[in-house]
Amino acid sequence: MYAAGDVRIEDVPDAAIEEPTDAVVRVTRACICGSDLWPYASMQRSEAGQSMGHEAIGVVEDVGSQVATLEKGDVVVMPFAFSDGTCAYCHEGLPTACVHVGFFGNNGMNGAQAEALRVPLADGTLYPLPVGEDDALMPSLLTLSDVMGTGHHAAVTAKVAPGKRAAVVGDGAVGMCAVIAAKRLGAEQIIVMGRHPDRIALAREFGATDVVSERGEEAVERVRELTGGEGAHSVLECVGHNTAVETAIGIARPGGAVGRVGVPQHTAIPGSLPAFFGNITIGGGPAPVRAYLDELLPDVLEGRIDPGRVFDHTVGLDGVPEGYRAMADRDSLKVMVTP
Amino acid sequence: MYAAGDVRIEDVPDAAIEEPTDAVVRVTRACICGSDLWPYASMQRSEAGQSMGHEAIGVVEDVGSQVATLEKGDVVVMPFAFSDGTCAYCHEGLPTACVHVGFFGNNGMNGAQAEALRVPLADGTLYPLPVGEDDALMPSLLTLSDVMGTGHHAAVTAKVAPGKRAAVVGDGAVGMCAVIAAKRLGAEQIIVMGRHPDRIALAREFGATDVVSERGEEAVERVRELTGGEGAHSVLECVGHNTAVETAIGIARPGGAVGRVGVPQHTAIPGSLPAFFGNITIGGGPAPVRAYLDELLPDVLEGRIDPGRVFDHTVGLDGVPEGYRAMADRDSLKVMVTP
Repeated sequence: MYAAGDVRIEDVPDAAIEEPTDAVVRVTRACICGSDLWPYASMQRSEAGQSMGHEAIGVVEDVGSQVATLEKGDVVVMPFAFSDGTCAYCHEGLPTACVHVGFFGNNGMNGAQAEALRVPLADGTLYPLPVGEDDALMPSLLTLSDVMGTGHHAAVTAKVAPGKRAAVVGDGAVGMCAVIAAKRLGAEQIIVMGRHPDRIALAREFGATDVVSERGEEAVERVRELTGGEGAHSVLECVGHNTAVETAIGIARPGGAVGRVGVPQHTAIPGSLPAFFGNITIGGGPAPVRAYLDELLPDVLEGRIDPGRVFDHTVGLDGVPEGYRAMADRDSLKVMVTP
Repeated sequence: MYAAGDVRIEDVPDAAIEEPTDAVVRVTRACICGSDLWPYASMQRSEAGQSMGHEAIGVVEDVGSQVATLEKGDVVVMPFAFSDGTCAYCHEGLPTACVHVGFFGNNGMNGAQAEALRVPLADGTLYPLPVGEDDALMPSLLTLSDVMGTGHHAAVTAKVAPGKRAAVVGDGAVGMCAVIAAKRLGAEQIIVMGRHPDRIALAREFGATDVVSERGEEAVERVRELTGGEGAHSVLECVGHNTAVETAIGIARPGGAVGRVGVPQHTAIPGSLPAFFGNITIGGGPAPVRAYLDELLPDVLEGRIDPGRVFDHTVGLDGVPEGYRAMADRDSLKVMVTP
């Protein structure tokens, strides 16, 4: 990506081991993330450009001399952040705060919308899968690299639990996965806020019990009506715009929690006073998807959740620029890339 | 209070039962709260004025016909909010979100810097004490009406637990009680941020292990140095100014929590991006002090905590205007009122 709206497919030097802890992964599945749409909308022109993509499944093609747990041929999930797997944060289950953390497809780091890429700290980062590279579950497994783990993080930080009323702000792919996660964690009511018919239909199949298509103050009123006047115990904020965060706080029940996973587009959080006077907790951040794999992978492998349904378009590498356009125009919910 | 800086002691009609769920309480101890200093600094002139004070211990003088658990002569703590004790929020331990909640000394509600006051929803609100009205523990018991419960709420919402590193932003009376609370909940390290020598000395006696007197970015750096470069797991924000909240988020460890109990003075919470990227949880609000009494009272009665030491001045009712001035000028940490 060279600027807002300017995505190009280019030949680059082959990925290769640079550090003894690296692996080279041949990408078999990648995708375009809602967060990729922020630079697609606003990136200043760059001469060097930015290699894009941070979600992938692939096959290990080469490993550095210090890589202990992986070998050539392993099929792996590549979470959107790399992490050493050994620091205090990694041990606490927060690899996105790893002391050696880095984010693929960001700040000059190479990206996964590519034939292959170098993965630093391979032992800590990559998660081996017990399936072949063409397994039918690939779309759902691919979501474990980011979008499903991120929806789960929204649910965890919004404190979804059995019997709770949940509301999901945002009908993008993260919002859809947040519905899955809220259902999976036992929410009794799941209100999805959106207006796109296909997405609403999918959300209902994933477990949404109610839909609110209003916006702003009307949306807040509608959620209150649906929740006995109280608001939702758990609000899963999957957008990042200030208006979405303001709505999220507005629909939270006193004593409830908002889990933010949409990348914030502003430097301050709106709703300081209602959050304070309602004792509403605001949590969330970049999802520790690597740490969630142990919990989520069995549900995918055994068919209890099917988050791969968020993919409604598949493109080869040459189709990636069109994939960005389709997602930006909301013609597509989420685009899978098969290099 | 008729305007910023304009506090008067006036004769008013005697407090009396108005609703069958009311009690009339003769105030034996009241005090001036840090939150009273916000209107003292900024209140627009009002013809009607506002009866002030929301912290008291007193003796029940009269009860309405539906009051079941209290009788004349009972010595009681009056939490700063009244609550019915029966709604879902009260049962969940959040009486400050009670469906019938109200706040003494606010929005026209009568205040406790007085000889007596009417207390609505007496069964749900008042908490009987097993001591006489002149018990030596009165100063500490009085803090259970607000300031100690509020410091405890900061600690709870900042997730203080054994072995955690805590930091307290603010060296007012709430900050001092937050130190007590952090110590009581097992924090391994307690950094207090302040520069007033008497307050720092008291904080150290209460359990503070470190003091940071710098401000702004220097304070953030200093806390990082004191916490192995990481920041504090638990940050107890006891001020309410945006700069204090920004510092609180700045000194929190990734994955940590900020508990806000200072009444926010701004409509947005600063530090959206660092809070998000650090997965820092922001919680807190008006403390459910009524719900905390079961837990905190035994520690006061048995001498394990001594929060009454925050009172460094005592005045009669006539001394209340001077008490406001002394606290506003930081000549006094907290003023007790003995009507």
